[in-house]
Amino acid sequence: MKTHWIAIDWGTTNFRAFLMSGSQPVSRISQPCGLLSVEKGQFASTLQTLLHAWLEELGNLPIVMAGMVGSQQGWHEVPYAPLPCLAEDLAARTLAFTTDWGSPAWIIPGANGNSRFSQPDVMRGEEVQLLGLALLHTASQHTALLPGTHSKHAQMVNGEITSFATFMSGEIFSLLSQHSILGRALPEQQEDTDAFLSGVKAARQGAPFTHLIFSARTRRLAGEIAETGVHSYLSGLTIGYELQAVPAGQQAWLVGSPSLTARYQLAAGELGLNLSAINGDDCFIHGLWHLFTQLQGNPS
Amino acid sequence: MKTHWIAIDWGTTNFRAFLMSGSQPVSRISQPCGLLSVEKGQFASTLQTLLHAWLEELGNLPIVMAGMVGSQQGWHEVPYAPLPCLAEDLAARTLAFTTDWGSPAWIIPGANGNSRFSQPDVMRGEEVQLLGLALLHTASQHTALLPGTHSKHAQMVNGEITSFATFMSGEIFSLLSQHSILGRALPEQQEDTDAFLSGVKAARQGAPFTHLIFSARTRRLAGEIAETGVHSYLSGLTIGYELQAVPAGQQAWLVGSPSLTARYQLAAGELGLNLSAINGDDCFIHGLWHLFTQLQGNPS
Repeated sequence: MKTHWIAIDWGTTNFRAFLMSGSQPVSRISQPCGLLSVEKGQFASTLQTLLHAWLEELGNLPIVMAGMVGSQQGWHEVPYAPLPCLAEDLAARTLAFTTDWGSPAWIIPGANGNSRFSQPDVMRGEEVQLLGLALLHTASQHTALLPGTHSKHAQMVNGEITSFATFMSGEIFSLLSQHSILGRALPEQQEDTDAFLSGVKAARQGAPFTHLIFSARTRRLAGEIAETGVHSYLSGLTIGYELQAVPAGQQAWLVGSPSLTARYQLAAGELGLNLSAINGDDCFIHGLWHLFTQLQGNPS
Repeated sequence: MKTHWIAIDWGTTNFRAFLMSGSQPVSRISQPCGLLSVEKGQFASTLQTLLHAWLEELGNLPIVMAGMVGSQQGWHEVPYAPLPCLAEDLAARTLAFTTDWGSPAWIIPGANGNSRFSQPDVMRGEEVQLLGLALLHTASQHTALLPGTHSKHAQMVNGEITSFATFMSGEIFSLLSQHSILGRALPEQQEDTDAFLSGVKAARQGAPFTHLIFSARTRRLAGEIAETGVHSYLSGLTIGYELQAVPAGQQAWLVGSPSLTARYQLAAGELGLNLSAINGDDCFIHGLWHLFTQLQGNPS
C-alpha cells in the first residue's frame, strides 16, 4: 500500500493542496486562501479547516509545504538556501515540526542568490518546481522560465540551481492595466491576439521599458490598436520584454499552467524562441515527492 | 508700453497661467485644475473664472495656451505637428479662436514622431519649452531632458526638434510606490539620499526594468535599505534607469522645476553624466512669447 501524504503550495494569494498516494495526486484543493487572507496566528487552524475532509478520512497525514508560507509573513520563517542549491541542500534546511493536531509537517526553504544582472534575488516555491523539472527531464543543463506575477528565469547544472532572476511581469501588467493612464478609461477589454502580438513585436525593438510602455498610448491614439485590445497589447509588451532576456537559440522550458504557458509560447513564436511547455503542478508534485522521501529518510 | 497677454500651460493635472508684459511674467496662477477636473463643455467658463482678476483689470487680453488642452480630451483638439518641427511649423498649425468673452485665443499644437527606439511618440506642451531652451541658449545641437510624470528626451538641430522619446518615470514611480508589493505595508517614508543613490547605482548594472525593480524587495529583505527609505530607493531606480538612455559623455540640458532637476542632477552625478539645469517655466514663457509674436504677425 502506498503512503498517503499532503503536498501544499501556499503562496501570497493562493492555497493549493494535493492529496498524494506515493508520487501520484489523488485529490486536490485550490482556494484563494493565501497568506494575505490568513489572520496572524491562525495558520494552524486555517490549514486544519482546509484539510478537514482528508484528515478526517485518513488521519494525521504528513504535510509538506512550500511557498511564501515559509516567509517572514508566513507561518514559520525558514531561511533561504543560498545558491548553488541541490535537492539535498533544500532537504537539509527544511523546517520540521508537528501540527497541534499531530500531523508531521515540513516547510521547504526558498532559495536566494545574485541574478546574472548583479541584483540580489529570492524565490519561495519555484525551487520545488525546478527540482521536479530536473527529475522529470534529466539533462546536464536546464534553462527554465516560470511565468507568473513574479516570473522566474533559472539555470540548472546537473540538477543544481545555479542562478535565477525574477521578472515582475504579471504584477507590472496589473499595475499598468488597472492603475496607469495607459489602461484607464477604456471600454470593456477583449482578448485580442493581434494586439498581443503587436505588443510582443514592439518589445523586440530593444526600447527601455519605461519608454516602451508609452506606445500603448500612442498606438491607441494612432488607431493602430483597438480600444478594446489595449490590455492585450500591454500583456504582449510585458511578456515580450521579459522574453528579451532569453538568449536567441537557447532551448528553454516553460513551467506553469497550460493557459499561461500557451500565452508565453505565442509570444515566443513571434520572437523565434524555442520554449517547451511543461505542467507546473506536475513539476511541483514531483519535486516535493522527491524531497518528502529524503525528509522521511532523515527525520528530525 | 508693453503688450499684456496671458501664457497658459494647461495639462492633465495642473493649470498654470502667467500674466505677461511683453516677454516678462508679472504675475502667475497655479491651480490643480487640469483637464481631469474640468467637466465636459466647461473649459471656457473654467478659464474665465481662473483668469477673472486679470481680465477684470486689463480687459480681454490675448491668451496663448499649450499642453493637453489641445488633446482629444481637451478644449479644442489641435492635430500634432509632425517631426522635424520648427517654431514656424508650430505657429502655422496653431488653432486660433475667440473666447465667448472676446479674448483672442490660440492653442499650440503638440508634436509627434517616431522615437529613436522605433516607437511612435507624442508630446503636448514640452515642444514650447524646447523652443524656449533653443532661444535662451543658442547652439547648433541640443539634447534636452524634461523630467516629469512622462519625461521627454529630445534632440534639436539648429532649433528644430528632430527626435524625442517619452519615459514614464514619474508615473511608474507612483504605481510602484502606491500600488505594488514593493511599496506597500511600509512605515512612513522619509527622504533618504543613501537609498536614492543605491537605487541609481543598481540601475547602472543594465538589468531589465521588470527585474531591476524586484531589488527593492530583496534589498529591503536583506536590510540593505531602510524600511523608511524604500520609496527613495524606487525613485533612484526609475530615474537611474531613465538616465541609462543618455549616452555617456553627452552634454545635455535638464529642463524643469528646480526641485526635480536637482533630483536628476544628484542621480546624474552618480552616473558621471553632464547635465545642466534650466528653469522649465523660463523656457516655457520664452518659447510661448516667441510663438505669440509670430502669431500676431500672422493673424488668422
